[in-house]
Amino acid sequence: MIATAHIVDNSADTLIARFHSRRQYSLLLAEPLTAEDMQLQSMPDASPTKWHLAHTTWFFEQFILLPFVEDYQSPQPQFNYLFNSYYEQKGERHPRAQRGMLSRPTIEDVYAYRQQIDSAIEQLLTTNTCDELVSLMELGMNHEMQHQELLLTDILHAFSLNPLYPAAYNAKSGIAESSADNVSASEQFIPFEAGLHEFGAAPQADFYFDCEGPKHKAYVSSFTLAKGLVTNADWLLFIEAGGYQNPVLWLADGWGVAQQQDWQCPLYWRKHGDTWYQFTLNGLVPLTLNAPVSHISYYEADAYAQWKGCRLPTEYEWELAAREQAISGNFSEKQIFTPMPDVGEGVMQLYGDVWEWTRSPYTPYPGYKAPEGAVGEYNGKFMSGQYVLRGGSCVTPIEQMRSTYRTFFYPHQRWQFMGLRLAKDC
Amino acid sequence: MIATAHIVDNSADTLIARFHSRRQYSLLLAEPLTAEDMQLQSMPDASPTKWHLAHTTWFFEQFILLPFVEDYQSPQPQFNYLFNSYYEQKGERHPRAQRGMLSRPTIEDVYAYRQQIDSAIEQLLTTNTCDELVSLMELGMNHEMQHQELLLTDILHAFSLNPLYPAAYNAKSGIAESSADNVSASEQFIPFEAGLHEFGAAPQADFYFDCEGPKHKAYVSSFTLAKGLVTNADWLLFIEAGGYQNPVLWLADGWGVAQQQDWQCPLYWRKHGDTWYQFTLNGLVPLTLNAPVSHISYYEADAYAQWKGCRLPTEYEWELAAREQAISGNFSEKQIFTPMPDVGEGVMQLYGDVWEWTRSPYTPYPGYKAPEGAVGEYNGKFMSGQYVLRGGSCVTPIEQMRSTYRTFFYPHQRWQFMGLRLAKDC
Amino acid sequence: MIATAHIVDNSADTLIARFHSRRQYSLLLAEPLTAEDMQLQSMPDASPTKWHLAHTTWFFEQFILLPFVEDYQSPQPQFNYLFNSYYEQKGERHPRAQRGMLSRPTIEDVYAYRQQIDSAIEQLLTTNTCDELVSLMELGMNHEMQHQELLLTDILHAFSLNPLYPAAYNAKSGIAESSADNVSASEQFIPFEAGLHEFGAAPQADFYFDCEGPKHKAYVSSFTLAKGLVTNADWLLFIEAGGYQNPVLWLADGWGVAQQQDWQCPLYWRKHGDTWYQFTLNGLVPLTLNAPVSHISYYEADAYAQWKGCRLPTEYEWELAAREQAISGNFSEKQIFTPMPDVGEGVMQLYGDVWEWTRSPYTPYPGYKAPEGAVGEYNGKFMSGQYVLRGGSCVTPIEQMRSTYRTFFYPHQRWQFMGLRLAKDC
Amino acid sequence: MIATAHIVDNSADTLIARFHSRRQYSLLLAEPLTAEDMQLQSMPDASPTKWHLAHTTWFFEQFILLPFVEDYQSPQPQFNYLFNSYYEQKGERHPRAQRGMLSRPTIEDVYAYRQQIDSAIEQLLTTNTCDELVSLMELGMNHEMQHQELLLTDILHAFSLNPLYPAAYNAKSGIAESSADNVSASEQFIPFEAGLHEFGAAPQADFYFDCEGPKHKAYVSSFTLAKGLVTNADWLLFIEAGGYQNPVLWLADGWGVAQQQDWQCPLYWRKHGDTWYQFTLNGLVPLTLNAPVSHISYYEADAYAQWKGCRLPTEYEWELAAREQAISGNFSEKQIFTPMPDVGEGVMQLYGDVWEWTRSPYTPYPGYKAPEGAVGEYNGKFMSGQYVLRGGSCVTPIEQMRSTYRTFFYPHQRWQFMGLRLAKDC
Repeated sequence: MIATAHIVDNSADTLIARFHSRRQYSLLLAEPLTAEDMQLQSMPDASPTKWHLAHTTWFFEQFILLPFVEDYQSPQPQFNYLFNSYYEQKGERHPRAQRGMLSRPTIEDVYAYRQQIDSAIEQLLTTNTCDELVSLMELGMNHEMQHQELLLTDILHAFSLNPLYPAAYNAKSGIAESSADNVSASEQFIPFEAGLHEFGAAPQADFYFDCEGPKHKAYVSSFTLAKGLVTNADWLLFIEAGGYQNPVLWLADGWGVAQQQDWQCPLYWRKHGDTWYQFTLNGLVPLTLNAPVSHISYYEADAYAQWKGCRLPTEYEWELAAREQAISGNFSEKQIFTPMPDVGEGVMQLYGDVWEWTRSPYTPYPGYKAPEGAVGEYNGKFMSGQYVLRGGSCVTPIEQMRSTYRTFFYPHQRWQFMGLRLAKDC
Repeated sequence: MIATAHIVDNSADTLIARFHSRRQYSLLLAEPLTAEDMQLQSMPDASPTKWHLAHTTWFFEQFILLPFVEDYQSPQPQFNYLFNSYYEQKGERHPRAQRGMLSRPTIEDVYAYRQQIDSAIEQLLTTNTCDELVSLMELGMNHEMQHQELLLTDILHAFSLNPLYPAAYNAKSGIAESSADNVSASEQFIPFEAGLHEFGAAPQADFYFDCEGPKHKAYVSSFTLAKGLVTNADWLLFIEAGGYQNPVLWLADGWGVAQQQDWQCPLYWRKHGDTWYQFTLNGLVPLTLNAPVSHISYYEADAYAQWKGCRLPTEYEWELAAREQAISGNFSEKQIFTPMPDVGEGVMQLYGDVWEWTRSPYTPYPGYKAPEGAVGEYNGKFMSGQYVLRGGSCVTPIEQMRSTYRTFFYPHQRWQFMGLRLAKDC
Repeated sequence: MIATAHIVDNSADTLIARFHSRRQYSLLLAEPLTAEDMQLQSMPDASPTKWHLAHTTWFFEQFILLPFVEDYQSPQPQFNYLFNSYYEQKGERHPRAQRGMLSRPTIEDVYAYRQQIDSAIEQLLTTNTCDELVSLMELGMNHEMQHQELLLTDILHAFSLNPLYPAAYNAKSGIAESSADNVSASEQFIPFEAGLHEFGAAPQADFYFDCEGPKHKAYVSSFTLAKGLVTNADWLLFIEAGGYQNPVLWLADGWGVAQQQDWQCPLYWRKHGDTWYQFTLNGLVPLTLNAPVSHISYYEADAYAQWKGCRLPTEYEWELAAREQAISGNFSEKQIFTPMPDVGEGVMQLYGDVWEWTRSPYTPYPGYKAPEGAVGEYNGKFMSGQYVLRGGSCVTPIEQMRSTYRTFFYPHQRWQFMGLRLAKDC
Repeated sequence: MIATAHIVDNSADTLIARFHSRRQYSLLLAEPLTAEDMQLQSMPDASPTKWHLAHTTWFFEQFILLPFVEDYQSPQPQFNYLFNSYYEQKGERHPRAQRGMLSRPTIEDVYAYRQQIDSAIEQLLTTNTCDELVSLMELGMNHEMQHQELLLTDILHAFSLNPLYPAAYNAKSGIAESSADNVSASEQFIPFEAGLHEFGAAPQADFYFDCEGPKHKAYVSSFTLAKGLVTNADWLLFIEAGGYQNPVLWLADGWGVAQQQDWQCPLYWRKHGDTWYQFTLNGLVPLTLNAPVSHISYYEADAYAQWKGCRLPTEYEWELAAREQAISGNFSEKQIFTPMPDVGEGVMQLYGDVWEWTRSPYTPYPGYKAPEGAVGEYNGKFMSGQYVLRGGSCVTPIEQMRSTYRTFFYPHQRWQFMGLRLAKDC
């Protein structure tokens, strides 16, 4: 099994209610979009909204209905080919880069498919809540949360290519708050002592992905961590100091990508005349100076840290700081969908707003072993070439967040809500 | 001006009626498609249905309303950027390969835009039918016809990438006829004498594109032309004889493309078990053996002719044969949308069914000069690297057809309804 | 046979002497180059000097020794794989783009191979001068001449990538002359009348390539042809007028290439400060203003002609003018290896200096049929996508030149000595 | 400074002798190669022999002569542009992928340059042996050793593209030994206990690169390490078991590369009929079954380990095992230049034969800071996307080896002598 779940109340009713609510949230996110919007695939890394809605449904069908319902007959046998993402053990798949070509099934067909599968799941749960099934339900719901986040990041990317700058959502009031003034905390450093610690998730946790475990020891040297995230105002100084023109600050690979793609600012910044704007899920808005910078690659984050004479934190350092704190912040449920400024005590905004790039490559923890079967393809096979990010973002469902949660992306990728916090040796 | 029109009855009423009818036909073609279908762009060569519907409208707006309506104010000023195809003199354009990213404007917005422009055109025509305007109206309607054809070829290509094999239309009855048996006429040759002839369109014609003129003399050596088009049955023999594996038959450039793209049969043929099928606008159907082969590149056509010890005809040879005949055949209005078998006397199927590759590169005729202004970008700037095809296809509006009509495509392209007829020196 | 030869004196002695002299000229051209120079392959279109020296030798071995010497045993059986250029019927080949990887055989090995084959050929000729063999000898020598030209154009390209600007040869005196002043004749037009003419080579000619025939009739409308070639001074005006920035002047394909490769001037022009230089086989030298412009693509030539309100001539037009003239001019044997200014009467410099782009795509003449066998792969299979150039250049052996000679290149290619002459309809 | 040197005897005489000997070894390696061989650049990752010989010389000139010789005048000022590898702070550079285009300077010019710089260095050392200069001399000599290795791996790659299979060297006797039989030790595992250890190089070491330090603590869980390297015989079993066809064994990125490049065996294996051969620096030889497998990517190594239910060791695990052992083995000085079988006690062949892929991404150690100045570009800027390999190979100079030495390559690269050893959790 790829994840461990340890749920106190796993009565059928509770589970059905949670399942229903989680599934509804996907529909809520899709609600303002047109059929044409939901068809868009703007790059191979991104998927159409319609595909997300279908694929998460397929996941429940394949990993729960198929093994647990006797003589299960799919209402849509062709969908296994269309909506398998990457599970080699589940057979051939529609090519990833061609997901945007599927005008059929229509969005109505996909909504119908969701209802069929949801009904079947709910019916199944009234008769069977064995541990394995409950664990797979948790996995399915966590998987749905991941796609709820991707749905938002992918539609933002697709809309960013439309010269009309369409606004997918309308959360202007949330953004209006953001003009509140605060002092930059991105260079106030808080010290942590060296020590041998345990990291990763333990079996008694409610739920975690396989790559978060096993719990293991690691030694961490003393370090300091910035109180605040690097802000848009900070980033403007980097631009003005010629940060995008100075190869000495950059990793060699990063400099290559930056030149080839002509990076001059974060992915969604636009300059009209002398004024900077940012394209958001709420449309094109003036840049919020004291909000965390977002949509930067690892290479840019690392170059910024070099420029400041600092470095990015490791994932262990982040986890040490974060596990002291309660999980709250600007997550998806606030429906602001844009990083916001913050003020407060201690290390701030560890959770929510933007995923924080760490300098830790995404590798297996000591003792890690991918689970058997198709479900074991979930995480392990991506453990090369990517970096860990921590803490979730303004489009992450809060229920998904844990201090041990590891997400991972390639260092050139920018379309997620990615930001950074500085660290130093001491 | 890029075209000359010489219309007998150009009363306002007649013109408005023709305009209305032509514009309606685009809507008729789009009618069975969903909003998602109309969003699809399957390759840079193809465009979304929605884009075709908007671009043809933009054409009337830019080339007629803008110059002829005083103080013209566009109802959609942003559409000039979005729906300009390639007119450098009309300003910056949305990148061609990104047309499929425009989920906004929605199809409803585009239909509204069509109505706005159509009303304005009709109103204009009630007050002004000067020669120049009438000529531009002819150009606009001919341009619309070209996009009515492209709309069909492009949706066919997009649907061909969908593993569900959706049928855009439903003309099965037309196809059922096709099993009628006939003797292959693709190797029965009809002789033509050598002589000095005039070619190209003359000013007294109703309408022609600039590239069809001026009328000019050319000497044609004696030749023979096949009575029938090469059929699917003929092509199967080429496949079975190893035609796709024998480089000696192929042009060097063609062999390169065929290897790189792994060509083994025409673009839309599919083999399931031992049976050949063809994907059509009416879905996946068994291959009609005595129908003309379609969706082959120039390189394949040329290799086939080599294999037969023949050659492709020149465009002059085709024109000599075709101008003796009345224009009729399997055109768009029949709504079969698939090439059909035929029997008859003389050189058959010169018009309709499939465009016929000629061995003539698309070059300017002696004395050709592109017109001044943006409208002059229509044809001349494409006069390199492409070959002329003649005769129209089962998705070409018949009104557009003339014995002088030249269409042109790159020799590697296959997504149009392209076939071939053999010729020989004698 | 791919060519027809009609030689008056084909005694063995004469033929051996001509063969020896032709083969020696290749060695003379290679003489100033180091082993390292002769290894260079700067792009797939170009080949190393060493490869040219070996391939021309292979040609004599394959097409003469192998069929005419009984039980022929190659001294270097592996060379058939290494030095076959593109003859599918001669078996598998070393990939073209990898020719620069052949450090072995060494240049000494190749020289030895040349001697072995030359001896065998000379010995064969003392015993056999049948017509077919004599024709193939002519073909082999003409093939060697083509590679003598390519050897020079290819080493020029390779050296152009070396920031040290090495001079392959030393013909400065020839270049010093070039400062002689003359009035530009590139816009003085000489008229020609319309008429039905015969074109192409006839069997009684000494030698011609298959693609030059058969002799055939064609009608040519009246036209005018410029007295002089377009010069470097003329081209500077095109640059200064923004010719490289104005898409309206360009063919659509040409504009695409020009943007992608950032063309701002002819291939070998370099600007240091305010001064223009040209990289030549004699090193980097100041631009000779009244010399013909060279190393421009078809797309640039066509854009220039558009800018002038003119057009490029057809190959028939060029041939009509050229067949009135004796063949002389700045050819390879002068060892200047750079286009030179000229003054004189009538249409000047039709022969030598630079190949002249024509607007004629390279297509088969009426009645053309590629010969049987491997030798038939010489020309026919390249008859798509290329344009005809006429007249030879300063690196073409004069013996190779005829008024019917057609060379051909892709419209984006620039590394040959390519220039242009204007024409107009009248 | 990028490295720390702590030399007991740094008298001028000793240093000059060591310098002379190190520089001579480069010439010895180049001795059997022709001028043409030394010109070859077979891919952007590799460099010509001539370039290696010049670049190592440039390194001494730039980092020692320029700062330490008053009013230093370079004998070859243009060489700074030509032979700078990647030091942004040393100015513009010749593009890496174009190194093979430099036929000039000739190899004779480069040898002369080497002599000029060597003389100047030796003269300088007679007057100045300050600590900084001595440290830079160590760095220069270690840098030369790295290029002595690359020279061999690069010429092997270049020769592998030549269908004549040339042998660069002649060490057949060494290879003959290799048929000695031994029992595979690649699956005999030796246990190591968990513990907190210190890793990395300490200042008192003779010499180390910046990336080997600083010395730091890390906790290592208990593990086992295979006694022997995976052999060619082992790898044949992987091939026969369909390892290259089973995506479930592979990292997702690795599977993508393997499919795209059609990997079916290690880089230099060739199958003729039923027999496997390996292309080596001694030419094409039958595969030595009990020798370590070599020239495999990280992706292949990882897939093999998956297939065995094992994993690759971390670099800490390797270092723990290796620092117990004396440094000896099959290194460059033996001039076998091919991995060899071995028998013995304990963990074998940790040093020499093949570099061992570890599962550790190449990242900075805790507390690492790149040195100031151009010399600081040596290691830090490559710390993304690559993996650490340990232990040196049959083409590594033994003097360069240390238990802390980290080399690094991208996971798709195969042209170094790369092999693997299995590890397991326990």
